[in-house]
Amino acid sequence: MNELDLDAMAAQISAVDEASREAAAERQSRLTKPAGALGRLEELSIWLCGVQGVCPPRPLDRVRVVIFAGDHGVARAGVSAYPPEVTAQMVRNFVAGGAAVNVLARTLGASVRVVDICVDSDLSDLPVDVTEHKVRRGSGNIAVEPAMTLAEATQAFSVGVALADEEVDSGADLLIPGDMGIGNTTAAATLVALLTGAEVATVVGRGTGIDDATWMVKCAAVRDAARRGRPLVSEPLALLAEVGGPDLAAMTGFLVQAAVRRTPVLLDGVISGACALIAHRIAHQARGWWIAGHRSTEPAHRAALDRLQLEPVVDFGLRLGEGTGALLALPVLRAAGATLAEMATFDEAGVSDRDDGAGS
Amino acid sequence: MNELDLDAMAAQISAVDEASREAAAERQSRLTKPAGALGRLEELSIWLCGVQGVCPPRPLDRVRVVIFAGDHGVARAGVSAYPPEVTAQMVRNFVAGGAAVNVLARTLGASVRVVDICVDSDLSDLPVDVTEHKVRRGSGNIAVEPAMTLAEATQAFSVGVALADEEVDSGADLLIPGDMGIGNTTAAATLVALLTGAEVATVVGRGTGIDDATWMVKCAAVRDAARRGRPLVSEPLALLAEVGGPDLAAMTGFLVQAAVRRTPVLLDGVISGACALIAHRIAHQARGWWIAGHRSTEPAHRAALDRLQLEPVVDFGLRLGEGTGALLALPVLRAAGATLAEMATFDEAGVSDRDDGAGS
Repeated sequence: MNELDLDAMAAQISAVDEASREAAAERQSRLTKPAGALGRLEELSIWLCGVQGVCPPRPLDRVRVVIFAGDHGVARAGVSAYPPEVTAQMVRNFVAGGAAVNVLARTLGASVRVVDICVDSDLSDLPVDVTEHKVRRGSGNIAVEPAMTLAEATQAFSVGVALADEEVDSGADLLIPGDMGIGNTTAAATLVALLTGAEVATVVGRGTGIDDATWMVKCAAVRDAARRGRPLVSEPLALLAEVGGPDLAAMTGFLVQAAVRRTPVLLDGVISGACALIAHRIAHQARGWWIAGHRSTEPAHRAALDRLQLEPVVDFGLRLGEGTGALLALPVLRAAGATLAEMATFDEAGVSDRDDGAGS
Repeated sequence: MNELDLDAMAAQISAVDEASREAAAERQSRLTKPAGALGRLEELSIWLCGVQGVCPPRPLDRVRVVIFAGDHGVARAGVSAYPPEVTAQMVRNFVAGGAAVNVLARTLGASVRVVDICVDSDLSDLPVDVTEHKVRRGSGNIAVEPAMTLAEATQAFSVGVALADEEVDSGADLLIPGDMGIGNTTAAATLVALLTGAEVATVVGRGTGIDDATWMVKCAAVRDAARRGRPLVSEPLALLAEVGGPDLAAMTGFLVQAAVRRTPVLLDGVISGACALIAHRIAHQARGWWIAGHRSTEPAHRAALDRLQLEPVVDFGLRLGEGTGALLALPVLRAAGATLAEMATFDEAGVSDRDDGAGS
C-alpha cells in the first residue's frame, strides 16, 4: 500500500450546505402544523437538506448497509459468549438473507452488502463482492499483541475508502456501516476508552450476553490493550494497528471517505461509534455528515456518542450490531424528509396560522 | 339512541392468545442472534403474536388511521394558540392529503380516514365517509357547561363503535386513533386529571404552543371542568358528556369495540391516552389489545400512560396529534414482526449457538 495522507483527505471534506439548512428551517415554519410540533423530525429534515444540499430533500431511494466482517484474536482469550466460528457462519447467513439485518433491510427499504475484511475462515466460495477486499485472516489478540501491522492497517483503511467509493459510485444516497465479528466489542471498548478517557470498567459491556467471569476477562483484555494503545492515541492508523483490527480500520476509512464524497451516514452501534471517534480525530468536519441511528446497550457506545455530541434517533435496547439499530432509524429519517417535501403550507391549504397575542 | 350496556360490551372482550405469545417467545430464542439482542422488538413481536393469535405473525397490510375531528366550546374561552376555524380547515387538509398524518401514512404504509364528529362548521360538501357520523356542531364550553347531553354522549360512543366495526369489516389489521380539534387537549387534560388523580397544573400542557397567560386560562378551565366532573368518574358516558366531547366519546367507543373485535390498536398521544383511560375503566381487558405508539410532550399523556402502565415505543418530542406519533411506531412494529417471521434459526443457518459455560 502507498502511504495514506490523512490530512489531505480531511482537507477534502466540506461543510454541509448551510443555505439548504436555512431554507429547510424556513419551510418548516410554513407547514400546516404548530411550530415545533414535529419535534425531532424537524431537526432531521433540516439535517437531510444540509447533507443533500437541496430543499426540500430528495427521497432516500438507495440506502446501503455495508457490513464489515472480521475475526478478533482476542476472542481466543475468552471474551465472548459465542465461539469465533460464528463470524464466518453469520457471513454466510447474511449472504443467504436470514439474519436480522437482512430482514430489517427488506422490511424498511435498504440493501445489504457484507464484506469479509478479516474473517478467520476461507470464504472464497462466496461472491466476489464479499471476498475481494480481504486483508487477512483474523487479527492478533490485542490483550497481548498488536491486532495487525501498520501496513495492514493502512491497507484496511484504504479498503474502507474503496468501499465508500464503490457504494457512492453505485448511487447510494445514504450509507449504514454494519459489523459482524466475535470479539469486536472488546476492540471497540478499548478504542472508546482511549479516545474518551473513560475508565475501562465503565466502557466494557456484556456484548452478546456474557456472564460475570467472562466480563472480568474482557475487562482485563481491554485494560492491557489500552495500556499499549495509550501512547498512540494521536496516530489513528498506528492505534488501529495496535488495538483495533482490520475491520475497524476499514470502517474508519469508510466513514472518512463517505464525508469526502458528501454522502450522509447513519451510524449504528458501538463498533461504528468507536470508528466514528477515530474518524472524527482524523477529520472533525466529517461529523456533520453523520447522525446516530440508535443507542445500543453497550456502555462504550454511550461514551462515544457523548464525546461526539450525537443524539441517537431511537433507543430500543438493541445490542446486535450488523447495522440493525441504524436501520430502525431509517423510517424516521425518511418520514422527516417526506413531511418537509410533501406537507401543505398554511397558504396552500387555506389554514389559518396561529393567532398570536389573543390566544383564542 | 338505545341505552348502551357497557358491561355487556366489556364481557365480550377476550384476552390475547397466550399460546401464540409462548410460541413467539420460544421462536425468538432460536433466531440467529444473541438472546435479547433485539431488545424491545422481541417484546413487540410477542405482543403481535398474542393479538393475532398466530406465530409467526402476519404482516400488517391494512393499517388504518381514523381521525376523530371535533370542535370544543372551550376554545372560545381562549385556551389555544389557534382560532377554532382551524379544525374545519384541517379536516379539508386531511381530505386533500396535505397534512402531516397524510404524509406519514403514505411514507410509512397506512391509510387515513377523517371523520367529522362535531366540527363547528358545515362540511357537508365532503365525502360521505367523512360526514355520515356527525353528532353535533361543536361542544359546550366545559369550563362553564356540559360538553353535550348524555344522549349525545351515548350516540357519539356508538358512532365510535360503528367506526371500529366498519374498519374491521373492511379488513383493517391494525387501527390508529387520531384526533383533530382546537381545544381538545383541554378536555383531555381534564379527563386525565380526573382519572389519574393528578393535580390540574401537572397535566395542563402547552398544546399547540400557548404562552403563559393562555396556559393560566387553560388551567382555570380544566380546574372548573374537573370540579363538575369529579362526581362522575365512575360513570364513563356521563363523564364524557360533562367534560369530554363527542369526538372523545366516539374515540372511546372505538377503542372498546376494537378490543371486542380482537383488533390491535396503536395509541397516539394525549387524546387517545385520555380516551384509553376511560375505555380501560369500561373494560380493563381492552388494554391487552393496545400498545402506546409514542410519548408526546403533553404532560397529561405521561400521566395517562403511567396509569395504564403502557411504555411508548418511540419518543421524538412530537405534539401534533392526528395519529402522527403512532405512525412513527408502525415501522418498528412491522420490523419486530418481520424478524420473528423471516429470520433464520440457528439450526436453519448452521450457526453455532452460544457456548455456555466456557465463554470463549
